[in-house]
Amino acid sequence: MTIRALFLNCSLKASTSRSNTQALIDKVAEQLEKLGVETESIRVVDHQVAFGAAMDEGEGDGWPQILERVRAADILIVASPIWIGERSSVAKLVAERLDATTYQIDGRNQHELYGKVGGAVVVGESDGGQSAIKSILYDLSIAGLTIPPNSDVYWVNEAGLGGPYLESQGDTCYFVNERVRWMAYNLTYMARLLKANPIPTDLDALQKDARKVSRPEKHLKPRE
Amino acid sequence: MTIRALFLNCSLKASTSRSNTQALIDKVAEQLEKLGVETESIRVVDHQVAFGAAMDEGEGDGWPQILERVRAADILIVASPIWIGERSSVAKLVAERLDATTYQIDGRNQHELYGKVGGAVVVGESDGGQSAIKSILYDLSIAGLTIPPNSDVYWVNEAGLGGPYLESQGDTCYFVNERVRWMAYNLTYMARLLKANPIPTDLDALQKDARKVSRPEKHLKPRE
Amino acid sequence: MTIRALFLNCSLKASTSRSNTQALIDKVAEQLEKLGVETESIRVVDHQVAFGAAMDEGEGDGWPQILERVRAADILIVASPIWIGERSSVAKLVAERLDATTYQIDGRNQHELYGKVGGAVVVGESDGGQSAIKSILYDLSIAGLTIPPNSDVYWVNEAGLGGPYLESQGDTCYFVNERVRWMAYNLTYMARLLKANPIPTDLDALQKDARKVSRPEKHLKPRE
Amino acid sequence: MTIRALFLNCSLKASTSRSNTQALIDKVAEQLEKLGVETESIRVVDHQVAFGAAMDEGEGDGWPQILERVRAADILIVASPIWIGERSSVAKLVAERLDATTYQIDGRNQHELYGKVGGAVVVGESDGGQSAIKSILYDLSIAGLTIPPNSDVYWVNEAGLGGPYLESQGDTCYFVNERVRWMAYNLTYMARLLKANPIPTDLDALQKDARKVSRPEKHLKPRE
Repeated sequence: MTIRALFLNCSLKASTSRSNTQALIDKVAEQLEKLGVETESIRVVDHQVAFGAAMDEGEGDGWPQILERVRAADILIVASPIWIGERSSVAKLVAERLDATTYQIDGRNQHELYGKVGGAVVVGESDGGQSAIKSILYDLSIAGLTIPPNSDVYWVNEAGLGGPYLESQGDTCYFVNERVRWMAYNLTYMARLLKANPIPTDLDALQKDARKVSRPEKHLKPRE
Repeated sequence: MTIRALFLNCSLKASTSRSNTQALIDKVAEQLEKLGVETESIRVVDHQVAFGAAMDEGEGDGWPQILERVRAADILIVASPIWIGERSSVAKLVAERLDATTYQIDGRNQHELYGKVGGAVVVGESDGGQSAIKSILYDLSIAGLTIPPNSDVYWVNEAGLGGPYLESQGDTCYFVNERVRWMAYNLTYMARLLKANPIPTDLDALQKDARKVSRPEKHLKPRE
Repeated sequence: MTIRALFLNCSLKASTSRSNTQALIDKVAEQLEKLGVETESIRVVDHQVAFGAAMDEGEGDGWPQILERVRAADILIVASPIWIGERSSVAKLVAERLDATTYQIDGRNQHELYGKVGGAVVVGESDGGQSAIKSILYDLSIAGLTIPPNSDVYWVNEAGLGGPYLESQGDTCYFVNERVRWMAYNLTYMARLLKANPIPTDLDALQKDARKVSRPEKHLKPRE
Repeated sequence: MTIRALFLNCSLKASTSRSNTQALIDKVAEQLEKLGVETESIRVVDHQVAFGAAMDEGEGDGWPQILERVRAADILIVASPIWIGERSSVAKLVAERLDATTYQIDGRNQHELYGKVGGAVVVGESDGGQSAIKSILYDLSIAGLTIPPNSDVYWVNEAGLGGPYLESQGDTCYFVNERVRWMAYNLTYMARLLKANPIPTDLDALQKDARKVSRPEKHLKPRE
């Protein structure tokens, strides 16, 4: 069984600039590869991803191609720098675009991305790691992914000192590196488990005994 | 295989008062029971749970008994009313007490609550459902639980109108009731899957190749 | 004394689409104008605002022109739709660009935008109003703005029903409209007060007795 | 004009234990006193503050006495340790109790605590400072307080290293100590300004032209 992991690097800077976020992605990818996982990383800002809430925002929108990579992956890891104590605007944009996949449900089925496993990688100069992770994991949960324990890792420096990850030798931090190993292990374990035992998506049987129904005409219409 | 679900009702009011949160808990419990799950619900504020970060805060602390019920459960659902757009202080207290279970790791093992599955039930008079869920699911993820997709449900009224769940007939809302069914199904599916296939907890092998280590003397010491 | 208010409409859609966010902005603007305030509204996504953390991200970046309007305003109101329970990615992008104005401090002075007053307008189809407001007000506070009481307003529908503001007649909601009047009043009062009594920005005197200094070489360097 | 500042220390531990949060409170208090402000600090957990949403939860509730001190203060600073990346459950409890003061409005007036100025002090062992501050400032804003710029300070250590404030010599951190001075200055300036120029609370005139009213019977009823 081949397991594929996709990292979406949500740096504000294009890949012509060095990304501290990428440096921590690389550590996680290295551990995933040791466990036999195929990994891929996309710098989102290199592509012209449009703002919007549709699957495809039309001409020039770089998202549909990224979405194909998401569909091909078993593990999706959103990686983000911290700005003002939170995940980047690019990471929020990714969440908004992923959200469109949840509108295709026809009342009987679960979301399209069910069966995938989600994780988070966050790098900042001071504070905001858990806040960013909390947002990313919730975004992925809403999109239908399963969140295993210890599926995230972050590095931040002491308050106010503000050195970046590589320059501050964050890559030698034992605590962070140990979490990287746990994260890789748990994501891989859960991805294999769900791939072999997919969550059933047709809830018809459950729907049959739906007894109390109110305002169904308004319910779950795709937003426009 | 018997699956047990525990609801921790984090209402601010003791069980002598009617709880709208309990009304939505009851709906989820009903669906879980249809799927063969044994359910139990505890109104946290009925017990004298001490503020603190230890497993047992000493004489008069009601937490150790609740923790025994948590350990006996396969599914843990934190249920909370919304206050000021967020989960209640009682729900935050529960998170702080659960957190102590993560300090027993000895450097080789994962958290004590690995293998359990987490969910959230939230009821408010207007707004704050997703914010409360996001916090609860993160609290449970940090504690080592797995979060399946659609593992939560909330009800809130239109902004500013402020009628409570039962009085406003929130219990007849199709959208909410359908989520209850999904939630019950996914929590049960994942709990069975993880009970049959427990996440390995001994990461010794992974630790052996830990090469870059910094400041290990400070690492992961239980906080005091 | 002329008071100017600027709304930054952070809709994901360009102004060729109808914006429910704009509809609520217009209500707030109407009340501000009754109080003698000059108002202006910019649809951020109409301009090509680059991702980044600098004052000016170079050729094609639409931000510097918007920043000039921010500088000319006494009241800055960030208006956003809700996506996944939070302010939009465009609103986060605005926060990241505003943040650059805080790096010009030379150790003696407060932030460039001191003296301005901040507010929030949020519109969603269900839930997330307070969460979005909380983030927007914090973004503005970090940027140096003063946040008066009741400086925000939001509208959301009942959980799961998902009708938009105008179609659902949110514009007739008494609660929301009353908050609009409070918001306009308080923002205007505070803007006049601060314009007549600017917060002193030179803290030299306070610096003189700074006794305990650690690692000053790393302190407050503008981030790369 | 006498300005009074009240700190509510929301440590989980009673005052028989040393509080790192108190150590940073003391630094802020020292600077406030240099500016002529009278300061007072209360360890909330020393008092038996009941869970609830009323002004007074009845026999044995320690909140009413604390509320008297809040009413006597011009500056209210909520100080909290960080647990799981957020302000403590005690700080959330304080917010829930403060919230009751906002229900006394009779449709014409603003909240009871209008005219007071709010701030935040946060101490943690790693990460979560901005997240805790964001929550505290929003709690205070909702309660009717004005939030001046730079009205907060936090200290946290590098991710995962987890030493506490005093032991890690956080008290010598130049960045943090400089923020303490700014915070003290801005809170004092704004408190003096608002005390001399109170925000008008009777919005009768504004109410007269309220034209579009919907469902007024449901509006703004005090919650049960």
